[in-house]
Amino acid sequence: MSIDAITATDNSAATALTEEEIFGAHQGGKLSVTSTVPLSNKRDLSIAYTPGVAEVSRAIHAKPELARTLTWAERLVVVVSDGTAVLGLGNIGASASLPVMEGKSALFKTFGDLDSIPLVLNTTDVDEIVETLVRLRPSFGAVNLEDISAPRCFELEEKLIEALDCPVMHDDQHGTAVVALAALTNAAKVTGRGLEGLKVVVSGAGAAGIAVAEILLAAGITDVVLLDSRGVINSNRADLAASPAGKKADIAGRSNPRSISGGPAEALAGADVFIGVSSSKLDEAHLATMNKDAIVFALSNPDPEVLPEVAVKYAAVVATGRSDFPNQINNVLAFPGIFRGALDAGARRITPAMKLAAARAIAELAEEELSADYIVPSPLDPRVAPAVTAAVAAAVEAG
Amino acid sequence: MSIDAITATDNSAATALTEEEIFGAHQGGKLSVTSTVPLSNKRDLSIAYTPGVAEVSRAIHAKPELARTLTWAERLVVVVSDGTAVLGLGNIGASASLPVMEGKSALFKTFGDLDSIPLVLNTTDVDEIVETLVRLRPSFGAVNLEDISAPRCFELEEKLIEALDCPVMHDDQHGTAVVALAALTNAAKVTGRGLEGLKVVVSGAGAAGIAVAEILLAAGITDVVLLDSRGVINSNRADLAASPAGKKADIAGRSNPRSISGGPAEALAGADVFIGVSSSKLDEAHLATMNKDAIVFALSNPDPEVLPEVAVKYAAVVATGRSDFPNQINNVLAFPGIFRGALDAGARRITPAMKLAAARAIAELAEEELSADYIVPSPLDPRVAPAVTAAVAAAVEAG
Repeated sequence: MSIDAITATDNSAATALTEEEIFGAHQGGKLSVTSTVPLSNKRDLSIAYTPGVAEVSRAIHAKPELARTLTWAERLVVVVSDGTAVLGLGNIGASASLPVMEGKSALFKTFGDLDSIPLVLNTTDVDEIVETLVRLRPSFGAVNLEDISAPRCFELEEKLIEALDCPVMHDDQHGTAVVALAALTNAAKVTGRGLEGLKVVVSGAGAAGIAVAEILLAAGITDVVLLDSRGVINSNRADLAASPAGKKADIAGRSNPRSISGGPAEALAGADVFIGVSSSKLDEAHLATMNKDAIVFALSNPDPEVLPEVAVKYAAVVATGRSDFPNQINNVLAFPGIFRGALDAGARRITPAMKLAAARAIAELAEEELSADYIVPSPLDPRVAPAVTAAVAAAVEAG
Repeated sequence: MSIDAITATDNSAATALTEEEIFGAHQGGKLSVTSTVPLSNKRDLSIAYTPGVAEVSRAIHAKPELARTLTWAERLVVVVSDGTAVLGLGNIGASASLPVMEGKSALFKTFGDLDSIPLVLNTTDVDEIVETLVRLRPSFGAVNLEDISAPRCFELEEKLIEALDCPVMHDDQHGTAVVALAALTNAAKVTGRGLEGLKVVVSGAGAAGIAVAEILLAAGITDVVLLDSRGVINSNRADLAASPAGKKADIAGRSNPRSISGGPAEALAGADVFIGVSSSKLDEAHLATMNKDAIVFALSNPDPEVLPEVAVKYAAVVATGRSDFPNQINNVLAFPGIFRGALDAGARRITPAMKLAAARAIAELAEEELSADYIVPSPLDPRVAPAVTAAVAAAVEAG
């Protein structure tokens, strides 16, 4: 089946979801832990449990690196949340966040063939979360942070990377950034421009916004302008020094090379690209001042910063986070392959080079049939995770 | 298939296990986390993940008790160890204990149809383990403690029961005790005696020994004599006051009604039952001084306190923990049904009444074909977990 066929024939989401359908699917949760070994006779029991398992425990005790192959831990991803920034619902707590984390674990298995378990915590203290995961370190092989509020998410990710000798990634930051870069790479190609010369406005300077800006800078784009609720971020803004974790002040010094100040009007005038990752609406009047062949990624869910039918009046390429419009920028394109590649290659960190490699791999898969309505593969395209896995593993080996 | 057929035809463990076979079965670990919902088209993705899952999260936030049915957590058993007393291997650490915990999780699924995940900790501090599980409380529904050294295991279990509003059980204590009581109930029947009048010696006053003594006392047996490495436990032993967690001093006041002092010789003379749960060997000369129709449970693994071929010279009924002799006293007869019954009935504690009900249910299943070589069902008998589940759930409802 060609990719066209995969996406063109999938009209499954054409009619609205019903409450019954949603709640029915979630009864009893969405995950199951099964045994990969038979347990149907005494011999099976003697192998998987006592006395056989004692040989395996003894071997790992004598040679700790054997735990990598003789347990599931070193390939197990824990999906960790404290429930402080769940989807668009805000701080709804650990228990209410669990259905999302179960979904994430289901996606890890389905797309990356990685085992994964959700761990939701009823503490929001960054140091306590770090301490908890340090204590549990022998139980897992990688950490996917999810739905943790900014700016705490920056501090938590940094501290965990320091404390743990395994891949750690906050997907709301880096998954989004990787897919946005992949989409932008192809959108630039569709509109006949180079990536590096683009003037980009990123609306939102939280977890996703900062990470998107960072990956664009890492990819060689120099003119990136960030907007937060107070306007354009620049080095003159006195309030940034007080911004927790120093993220905004830091990026202020490395972005906005034309030293723009003001608000969305000033940022968008003459810009090539708008990437929205906040819930702030994009004013049509500002949109109209963007350059010819503008690129608009309105990624807020479920309500994009601007509706595609409005955006297409001014933009050559439009993408959203939704499955009911073309060009869905969905993290599932990135995270299964990023973690799988990192674990396959035995990486201890997820580096900028690995993220850039993932973005390139995603972009390349759409290249064959590239058009304004097809700048990224479908989230269900089965080629994606293997391609991202291979690219990320190659980046580890090259690094 | 009759139970005879199940056990009689299972010669699968007749030849010795090979290293190749054991290590081959453990490659990559023994567990897999799968999705219970389909994820093959856009609609599936919209239901299990965004936007559908947001409805479920919102519902749980509004009505927290919905987490019981709309997530997997409230029926998920965490198998927790710090690796301090792994099988007969001692303190080999968390990572080396993981194959055992994976095996346990596999057994929970296979026999109790309960999802379960291993959590192994690289701290051995009781309060830190409690704190860690309190923080993770929204992630799970019950705690199976495993392979944690005595006397820390007593303190840990007690503190966790206080700190968590869900079933907590240290299986090395209570699983063993439940199955030993079931076996003893039927051994008494086979030898034509009442349970309550038996004179019982329990060799070993660690996790399993204390729990066995406790359940025997709870079942109405009054003459229980415990032996530790220094000899018979009685109220006159000055060293017991110093025993951590006070367990030995406590039980000294409630056992040994004939105030026996001395060692195994004094304990075994005129006893009806020997239950060994330490690695101390049982001297044949002492065995010879037991009453007629003696009952010997030599439960140490892999080396029983006395070999069955020696024990049968003096005892009417002999049981071990091994699958290659008749009457295997194996925890797997108890724990899947105990946890399943507790969770099915919404119990917040695992009470003595629930443990006694589990023991009765196990004993009853062997009654039909009772003989000196068949006092407990086979660990693979598929009737066991459902029967234990029903009995435990009924005990919760009666309680």
